[in-house]
Amino acid sequence: MNPDPHRIDPAGLITAPAGFRAGALACGLKASGNLDLALLLADASCPSAALFTRNRVAAAPVILGRETLPEGAGRLRAVLINAGNANACTGERGLADARAMRAGAAALADCPPEEVLVLSTGVIGVPLDMAKVEAGLAGLPARIGPAGGRDLALAMMTTDTRPKQAALALDLPSGARIQLAGAAKGSGMIHPDMATMLALVTTDAQLEPTRLAACLRSAADRSFNRISVDGDTSTNDALAILASGASGHAIDPRGAAGAADLAAFEAGLTALCQHLARAIVRDGEGASRLAVVRVTGAASAAEARQVANAIATSPLVKTALAGADPNWGRIVAAAGRAGVPIDPARMALDAASGFVEAGDPGGAWLRLFEAGTPSAFGEAEAAAIFAAPELTLRLGLGLGAAEDEVWTCDLTADYVRINADYRT
Amino acid sequence: MNPDPHRIDPAGLITAPAGFRAGALACGLKASGNLDLALLLADASCPSAALFTRNRVAAAPVILGRETLPEGAGRLRAVLINAGNANACTGERGLADARAMRAGAAALADCPPEEVLVLSTGVIGVPLDMAKVEAGLAGLPARIGPAGGRDLALAMMTTDTRPKQAALALDLPSGARIQLAGAAKGSGMIHPDMATMLALVTTDAQLEPTRLAACLRSAADRSFNRISVDGDTSTNDALAILASGASGHAIDPRGAAGAADLAAFEAGLTALCQHLARAIVRDGEGASRLAVVRVTGAASAAEARQVANAIATSPLVKTALAGADPNWGRIVAAAGRAGVPIDPARMALDAASGFVEAGDPGGAWLRLFEAGTPSAFGEAEAAAIFAAPELTLRLGLGLGAAEDEVWTCDLTADYVRINADYRT
Repeated sequence: MNPDPHRIDPAGLITAPAGFRAGALACGLKASGNLDLALLLADASCPSAALFTRNRVAAAPVILGRETLPEGAGRLRAVLINAGNANACTGERGLADARAMRAGAAALADCPPEEVLVLSTGVIGVPLDMAKVEAGLAGLPARIGPAGGRDLALAMMTTDTRPKQAALALDLPSGARIQLAGAAKGSGMIHPDMATMLALVTTDAQLEPTRLAACLRSAADRSFNRISVDGDTSTNDALAILASGASGHAIDPRGAAGAADLAAFEAGLTALCQHLARAIVRDGEGASRLAVVRVTGAASAAEARQVANAIATSPLVKTALAGADPNWGRIVAAAGRAGVPIDPARMALDAASGFVEAGDPGGAWLRLFEAGTPSAFGEAEAAAIFAAPELTLRLGLGLGAAEDEVWTCDLTADYVRINADYRT
Repeated sequence: MNPDPHRIDPAGLITAPAGFRAGALACGLKASGNLDLALLLADASCPSAALFTRNRVAAAPVILGRETLPEGAGRLRAVLINAGNANACTGERGLADARAMRAGAAALADCPPEEVLVLSTGVIGVPLDMAKVEAGLAGLPARIGPAGGRDLALAMMTTDTRPKQAALALDLPSGARIQLAGAAKGSGMIHPDMATMLALVTTDAQLEPTRLAACLRSAADRSFNRISVDGDTSTNDALAILASGASGHAIDPRGAAGAADLAAFEAGLTALCQHLARAIVRDGEGASRLAVVRVTGAASAAEARQVANAIATSPLVKTALAGADPNWGRIVAAAGRAGVPIDPARMALDAASGFVEAGDPGGAWLRLFEAGTPSAFGEAEAAAIFAAPELTLRLGLGLGAAEDEVWTCDLTADYVRINADYRT
């Protein structure tokens, strides 16, 4: 599904869909004094779905979130987010703190605690300063207002250099217009095993929770999971969607135009999630360059993903990207150790500047390697592609018809500087 | 097997065992003008074994090496090594060049080409300048001499900052004394998927090729494979051993004292390989710190290795090591995403300065994390351990009795600098 037909507003707020309000304040969890506690509030309890980290060391709010939304679906009235402290590896005390946050937010929202999702991001292994959180909760109602969506996106940030948000008006095949919006934070490099990723999506469409969960899984697989090694996630990663239904338009595939509407909704949700996921990669810690690693001609999509991941996670490939060095040998060598039975004699590697979408017949491709040997490409032309702020690598395996892609960024000395001394 | 009883000479030459000579010269493959072509010459054809990269994109000399030593065992008279060019991704021409190198060395050694192993390391995807290699081959005989062992270790280097060699005199249970020696190069970071690793071992013991191959596999698994993600190897990685038999002592487990001698030989070979493997990690590109990541209490050794690898390869753990930051949360989070069903409530994480060997009852351990929560350790004490040039991390899973370990180094801004612009 090509996301191009969607007119995404890159500055759209999470409160753009009808039925949602938000607010944030600085309660002191961030030493910087920046916004660090945010609340998303729905006008009424609404169908919701969420995906959580698969890390075996799950943070307290994730453990609680799985209780709140069994099977990843249920109903939510509010989402409370704090940054500056992940409430991870904090044991029983951490779980009690997460429950206290949930109860506090439920009191503000005037709903049962079971309708509140808590999300945390920040340093691991330090107990939350609950006095600060409680004081912050008391001040939140006064902050809920029209600018709240912008504040929420700011309050989620840790090492992010800019907020990540977007909104989208979607005209469904049945004629109805619904809104979708999202806010995300990714504290850095592209793989969630390296950083907490939080993302929140709202819509004023009306969908059943389990259908919403299915749409979310599908969209995540083509967006946030493209910036992830399968199953590799931090202690706190979470992606949640709330559907207020305030547009008055129900999306139900059992109805006449329902199936087409559902497909359009899923495509719009996917485009929105892709926009946010790419924003996370572009804001990678220390990153100066985004690369799409697309593997085509694979025997299966899983093998394509496996090869793409090996390339996208290779420190040698990522440092070459930092140096704007068209070092195709490292790309080919990374593919060779992916654990997939590839044959160099059947391979072909192309590069183009810019984010060339899959299925886009254009793209000024330069062939770097083919049939086991380097191609006779112009060094200056290759250098220009690798110096672009975004580039696309396309590796054909010549083994089948399946393809998949991963989005990565370069590994710079700044990344090391940011992470060598994060905690102390 | 504790390698301590072995008195390893850290400056011992590859020519220490009887029956071997060596030499090297600069033929111009390295732009620096440093030594780049070396020959190891046995007095006679001798039982040999080798292990090669499992990368699907194997370099021409590796493809040829597998022909020379089917099943990793056979007989060799000489090993020709070049640095400055990996002869990888060079197609048919590369294979022809590797064959020409093999033929040239065979002429010097006065042996069939099938008794010559060729090893290459350096840049990928550039055809070898064979005129330089041929001229170098012509000059090599004059360089074969007593100092040749030292020159060979120097000629193997690429981004290595120092040569890596060692020798060992081994008193076998039967009373015989044999010699073992090795030289290695590892151009950088700890995982062979990131750098070519070449290692050459000689001995004057006499062993059958297949037995030698079995000993080599066992030793590699506890040394060079500890600095490797399973199966993750570069296009050129190779480890070879030649047994001249010039000591006059045959090691044959079918004999009376043979089984004990074979065990002692394997232990000595393992200790030598461990010494060389650790030297590679210590000389990691830009590395300032070596860390042993030992996982104990696992359900199986494979799962222990899997968890240790996840920790040892985590950029967040490696950058924390660079910053001397006791950020145990990243270690625990990396373990959580290893794909092994661990339970944080059963885990315990300790750290000690220095390379604390497995089975060493000593070690000044500091507990950092236990049963899902941080321990009340002294921040200054933890900082001192993480500031040491070598430290040992011990993560107990509380799931079983198996253990394994991986040796890693820190990820520094210097690593990025070295690799961002290697090729151009």
